[in-house]
Amino acid sequence: MKMVALEEIREISVVSASKIVMLVIDGLGGLPDAKTGHTELETAHTPYLDQLAKRSICGLIDPVSPGITPGSGPGHLALFGYDPLKFTIGRGVLEALGIGFELTKNDVAARGNFCTVDDDGLIVDRRAGRITTDKCAELCKLLGQIKLEGVELFVWPVKEHRFLLALRGDGLSAGINDTDPQRLGIVPNMAIAKEPQAKHTAHMVNIFIDEASKILARHHPANMILLRGFSKLPDIPSMNEIYKLAPAAIAVYPMYKGLAKLIGMKVFSADGGIQEELKILADCFDKHDFFYVHVKNADSAGEDGDFKRKVSVIEQVDSALPQLLELKPEVIVVTGDHSTPAMLKGHSWHPVPVLLYSQWCRSDDVKEFSESACISGGLGRLHATDIMPLAMANALKLTKFGA
Amino acid sequence: MKMVALEEIREISVVSASKIVMLVIDGLGGLPDAKTGHTELETAHTPYLDQLAKRSICGLIDPVSPGITPGSGPGHLALFGYDPLKFTIGRGVLEALGIGFELTKNDVAARGNFCTVDDDGLIVDRRAGRITTDKCAELCKLLGQIKLEGVELFVWPVKEHRFLLALRGDGLSAGINDTDPQRLGIVPNMAIAKEPQAKHTAHMVNIFIDEASKILARHHPANMILLRGFSKLPDIPSMNEIYKLAPAAIAVYPMYKGLAKLIGMKVFSADGGIQEELKILADCFDKHDFFYVHVKNADSAGEDGDFKRKVSVIEQVDSALPQLLELKPEVIVVTGDHSTPAMLKGHSWHPVPVLLYSQWCRSDDVKEFSESACISGGLGRLHATDIMPLAMANALKLTKFGA
Repeated sequence: MKMVALEEIREISVVSASKIVMLVIDGLGGLPDAKTGHTELETAHTPYLDQLAKRSICGLIDPVSPGITPGSGPGHLALFGYDPLKFTIGRGVLEALGIGFELTKNDVAARGNFCTVDDDGLIVDRRAGRITTDKCAELCKLLGQIKLEGVELFVWPVKEHRFLLALRGDGLSAGINDTDPQRLGIVPNMAIAKEPQAKHTAHMVNIFIDEASKILARHHPANMILLRGFSKLPDIPSMNEIYKLAPAAIAVYPMYKGLAKLIGMKVFSADGGIQEELKILADCFDKHDFFYVHVKNADSAGEDGDFKRKVSVIEQVDSALPQLLELKPEVIVVTGDHSTPAMLKGHSWHPVPVLLYSQWCRSDDVKEFSESACISGGLGRLHATDIMPLAMANALKLTKFGA
Repeated sequence: MKMVALEEIREISVVSASKIVMLVIDGLGGLPDAKTGHTELETAHTPYLDQLAKRSICGLIDPVSPGITPGSGPGHLALFGYDPLKFTIGRGVLEALGIGFELTKNDVAARGNFCTVDDDGLIVDRRAGRITTDKCAELCKLLGQIKLEGVELFVWPVKEHRFLLALRGDGLSAGINDTDPQRLGIVPNMAIAKEPQAKHTAHMVNIFIDEASKILARHHPANMILLRGFSKLPDIPSMNEIYKLAPAAIAVYPMYKGLAKLIGMKVFSADGGIQEELKILADCFDKHDFFYVHVKNADSAGEDGDFKRKVSVIEQVDSALPQLLELKPEVIVVTGDHSTPAMLKGHSWHPVPVLLYSQWCRSDDVKEFSESACISGGLGRLHATDIMPLAMANALKLTKFGA
């Protein structure tokens, strides 16, 4: 059976006054602590989330598919209803979003690594000994001075050995192989066009690499570069086109703001915690009808393997929840874009708890917001892409499909 | 992920003596009453359904997809195993099914509205003040006298301002835009061919509209017509082709009988309640191996917002259930084509409870047939299109897929 697609949603979505708030606690799902048997969410004291869960319908969502660990891009796209297997975002573009570089439709972006090659040009360290971010910035400045005819060049530092390369110009194509062979002991690949229209771009990239290697020769260990994930902005319909929403995003980190902007959200930058974010939410509540509120720190704590800190982030969200409830949005969704168990120190494949509150949600027997309780929730186990249609339906923003 | 499709089922279905009864309580699913916290189904006293649920495997089904509110067409197609996103039925065809007009493969059908235009031809009321059905019938008779060369014409009243237009003739095409702009203050659209082979049909439709406007000039407020949903009978395989079944439908309302006929069921008309329907079932039980029994009134009560009446319809079904059980069909499915909560006075997106009884069903712990109990049923939350393969499997009518 086909799954419902954005084209069908576009046909049946309607504008209404009701408001949807989607609170995304990044990396929400976890794994139980060996001693207590409780996950981060189950360990956290969350009276407000539990109360809300009682009035909600709950379940577990798979961002991509069971067993698949999603990156932040696919995880979020799925929550916003975009099939992450259909709408793929190239690594170069993701890198640009992540540092707040504003890509245009004429840009080709690639993820770059400074690396170390030996006297024969063979790769001996793909990360150039993880040079400092300051050193990376200094080298990017040098590479940014390279001139390519008819192409504007951007080389931005990311972190340690990582940088962003963006080429801006007419007729550039992203159809180029990676120059990073992802192996040691061999020379980097040439940039080769995978399609005829990419030949010019491949040529420009090879000139850039050649110039870069000359400049970097005296900067051992960062004496060469590797490029991968050449990509352009994806062709993706906006949330307004599909859902007829006027969506707003409230987030701290550039990557999430960039992704939100990509699908047409109005972005509000926060630089504090959840309380500041919810203050911004209150301020713009009248002007929008969909609100994506992003809480990053749960994921960061999970990535650091810091169980306690992740518990504490969740508790901070819980104690701020009344601020959100006061606004009385018709629909509230609380979930995560993926799991980040502290025990695994990274993203994982485990499905993510979700609660959906509305007057019409047909609430279930779930009495607390946790991985184990959500198993028996009324939503069952769903694809994350089902959450937006459900939120829209509960906001009475979808008409009937077929007569 | 691809789901199993009709082509695969066709390959593995086999004929056997076992019988499947699918009892469809239209609009079965509901929402809890604010005071009691119980839905219509949960409020109803249903000892026989509960007893059957104990011996069955239960779950919740999404007719189209989570969050999507299905029309009756998609809701039923899904129950019969036809992907409602693939097999779409045009509005014109549905209107014909709904009034028992027998479409042939040569027909193009459209839904018509009588409307009001002002002296400049601008639409001022898309429904002509909702004229009476009698008036509609009188005007349809007049329009039915219009002559189109080489085309047989049918103009049938539906209800109030609504009518069916059907053109019958060789080489007619449904590739025509709506003439109904669905806006006020502008003139109706011309019929325009969306594909070259529809040019002739568009021309005929424009002549019809022109003649109609002359005839209707003296029938203000119904002084013009709007047409939409031009469509032909869909190309849809019969249940016999797919499942090798000899299927029968027992229903009261034309639309459901029409839909059943469309997929090759032998239709038995009832005009009373469930007891009469089950009497017909008993009479034809020897001659068929699949029986679709349709109970309309639960949906009608839901649409009217009449919680109590919906409860009472469900109780009537329950008390008639022993009549069905006496026949000892190998497989019994009880479900609905969608939810129609009295609180929402219309179809809704909420998943529908389903029970499936057979000797081989591997029954679960569900002890009553209700929305909340079905959440923890052994079927979990399923697409409605999975029900037919499950019913077929439980009737031992499907062989192994692959070696």
